[in-house]
Amino acid sequence: MTEDLDSFTLAEKEGLYKAVFSRRDVRSHFIDKRIPDDILVNILNAAHHAPSVGFSQPWDFILIKNKTTKLKVKQSFTKEREKSIPMLDNDLEKQDKYVKLKLEGILESDINICVTYNPEKFGPFILGRTSIPETGEYSVCCAIQNLWLAARAEGIGVGWVSILSIDDLRKILNIPNHVKPIAYLCLGYVNKFEVRPDLETSGWLKRAILSEVIHFENWNNTEVNGWDDTNTIIQGLDDDPDK
Amino acid sequence: MTEDLDSFTLAEKEGLYKAVFSRRDVRSHFIDKRIPDDILVNILNAAHHAPSVGFSQPWDFILIKNKTTKLKVKQSFTKEREKSIPMLDNDLEKQDKYVKLKLEGILESDINICVTYNPEKFGPFILGRTSIPETGEYSVCCAIQNLWLAARAEGIGVGWVSILSIDDLRKILNIPNHVKPIAYLCLGYVNKFEVRPDLETSGWLKRAILSEVIHFENWNNTEVNGWDDTNTIIQGLDDDPDK
Repeated sequence: MTEDLDSFTLAEKEGLYKAVFSRRDVRSHFIDKRIPDDILVNILNAAHHAPSVGFSQPWDFILIKNKTTKLKVKQSFTKEREKSIPMLDNDLEKQDKYVKLKLEGILESDINICVTYNPEKFGPFILGRTSIPETGEYSVCCAIQNLWLAARAEGIGVGWVSILSIDDLRKILNIPNHVKPIAYLCLGYVNKFEVRPDLETSGWLKRAILSEVIHFENWNNTEVNGWDDTNTIIQGLDDDPDK
Repeated sequence: MTEDLDSFTLAEKEGLYKAVFSRRDVRSHFIDKRIPDDILVNILNAAHHAPSVGFSQPWDFILIKNKTTKLKVKQSFTKEREKSIPMLDNDLEKQDKYVKLKLEGILESDINICVTYNPEKFGPFILGRTSIPETGEYSVCCAIQNLWLAARAEGIGVGWVSILSIDDLRKILNIPNHVKPIAYLCLGYVNKFEVRPDLETSGWLKRAILSEVIHFENWNNTEVNGWDDTNTIIQGLDDDPDK
């Protein structure tokens, strides 16, 4: 890597933003097409170059193609989803919607990846993890987002299945007790990327406007002086939150 | 957004990988140059378009320029770092190295951003968060990585300061108790991006080779059949882990 990496051409910059804005959590549209080995490795290498607290690189990636394993994970999903349905007993309309949503593509996707966190790697002292231990797990999430964006740039869809039992995953994949599964991802080529998130399209929730999530100087916005121009630009985006 | 978002040109794809591989955790090299409002908003909007469990978008961003606030955060850093030094009493050489490292650029960077997690937003029922509650925090981390990569593409350095007290941050920034600070970021233009992580250059830790973090079918690699070609490509990268 050389100095020319420092500045981005317009097309390169647009590539980054394109991946960010067109990335979707994919549950449908997976097609029967293998991910080439070199593309898969590119995506994994992007994940491996994420930031990590104290350069601890505490992630592992378990790559899964085995149908029996996928079926066991799917069973865990089905069980966990069943358990969650009664939590919506006070809102039967939402419960009905929830039951009908497609929430995973475990069997249809080419490759599943379980991403895990190993707190003992390079430990016990991890620089920067002494005050906030969760920063170890946070590092793994940064790696997952790198993986997701790289996959999108390669035209590969990724779906994060979070309705799973951590204990089931440990058992199915022989993961030691001190290692924590963080994400179970489904990767595969798709026949299309949706323009909006499925949960937005289905009316489950809508995208928050940007100004709702921005605060100036402190949570209560008591010092907005000096932020007028920023605020004006943010509010300009509020008219079209999908932009 | 239209259909042409689906495929990436070579330059666009390279842009994504360039951001991933040249992103650094910046503590030094900040220069005295303001981040333009529109660039700042681009970066925040990229963060806001991260994936989130159940489309819950549970993040908030507190933007900080106020010097008094920055000084209070710096004090929290200094205090927390002091507390961590004795943890290396059994390795005095490493302790000496630790004390000399520059680990934050709170005062030198143009803008600080505290990124927080609000578990109550759109709740109490969050689709996909029923089995693994941590997925809410994980969503915020995906937003942080989007922010980090967008900043890199804009030529702006980001440093994540994790040696801080969550309680101090809550008090300094008037963050309600139910909202959890996830990251404290320092953003600013820099006079250069280092080619390697500071902690790698200083010999603190080295980059793990990719093959160390990849497992086939399960943690114990008992089913490597069918993964030979992938494995060969991964091992090819091991000769130069910085690639």
